[in-house]
Amino acid sequence: MGRPRTPLLDRARITTTALQLVAEKGEFSVPQIARRLGAQTASVYHHVDGRDGIVELMRERICEAIDTATLTLEPWDAALAAWARSYRAAFAAHPRVIPLLMTSPVRAPKVLEQYERAVGLLLAVGFAAEDVMPALTGLENLVLGSALDLAAPATMWELPDENSTPHLARALAAVGAGRADAAFEVALEGLIAHCRSVLTATGDQPSR
Amino acid sequence: MGRPRTPLLDRARITTTALQLVAEKGEFSVPQIARRLGAQTASVYHHVDGRDGIVELMRERICEAIDTATLTLEPWDAALAAWARSYRAAFAAHPRVIPLLMTSPVRAPKVLEQYERAVGLLLAVGFAAEDVMPALTGLENLVLGSALDLAAPATMWELPDENSTPHLARALAAVGAGRADAAFEVALEGLIAHCRSVLTATGDQPSR
Repeated sequence: MGRPRTPLLDRARITTTALQLVAEKGEFSVPQIARRLGAQTASVYHHVDGRDGIVELMRERICEAIDTATLTLEPWDAALAAWARSYRAAFAAHPRVIPLLMTSPVRAPKVLEQYERAVGLLLAVGFAAEDVMPALTGLENLVLGSALDLAAPATMWELPDENSTPHLARALAAVGAGRADAAFEVALEGLIAHCRSVLTATGDQPSR
Repeated sequence: MGRPRTPLLDRARITTTALQLVAEKGEFSVPQIARRLGAQTASVYHHVDGRDGIVELMRERICEAIDTATLTLEPWDAALAAWARSYRAAFAAHPRVIPLLMTSPVRAPKVLEQYERAVGLLLAVGFAAEDVMPALTGLENLVLGSALDLAAPATMWELPDENSTPHLARALAAVGAGRADAAFEVALEGLIAHCRSVLTATGDQPSR
């Protein structure tokens, strides 16, 4: 009554609707977004840079939840680990978007800026330029695989009985409810330790 | 002409169709499978143990491509690395199925048997029971994240110009076309080295 109505279409609402569709269906289309927002498909295209633009809006929205202040922590290995934990938490809220984002090129300026900071950190501490992307990508693969694992059911292995797979039954009995977190932390520790050894092998002195 | 016709429905054809649907749409439904095979939905249910049963058939099909003979290699760390490489290759052919499988409990007997062998290997070389599932899950998260990365476009970061993200531009220029493989191998080496150190820390003597 007299208050301005929420506009049917803006980039934020389009992004939210695309994320909802992917969460429900594993995919989205521009006509589906238009239908949910009670708009014409052509009107949606008026607000975004095509379907690829919507993918980048989703990427930007999810990456906004990553705490980039972690990248300023010292020493650098603590910074990288803290960034990886925050990165995993951000994507764990959107597991079904992960394959979509991993198979589309990164164009969102704010996300490129986040890569710039992470790459800058590794270069600053003495990583050889050719080692940076393999190290970061390996870390991201672990982070995103582990984010998917956070969406796994509490009982991930359903054994018909203990006798058919006795070793698996024993290993599962020995690990508690924190399996997903323990797996991520152990693997993260392994990757970061390996980054340390790569850095030492280059022989450069870290500058921070 | 006298030759037997291919039956419209059997578990293998249902599995293939489900994999095709997920590859195209990111999801599948039993009615969609029925439609593609020119059958009634009820007839599909006659062959499989519900929708969950189809998920397990897809898991079994993909995991059949993993070379489990790798798990008998010696020493154990070479076995684990070879298994991880074969595991990644098997799933790289089906990237969009990964989130579906990672969020449904493992029930397929042949797949449980493969876990049994991997767990048995780690227990046999002296891993503490409580360390086995974290180590294996961490490795799987890396493997599946890296399988998704193999489906990434050749140019994964599209920079508007070199000046806005100079560090990222430099790191990308320094790494060649083998970025995805290099990232996986570096991270795999890190995880396996960490497994070695976990094993040493337990103080047990490996039995092989």
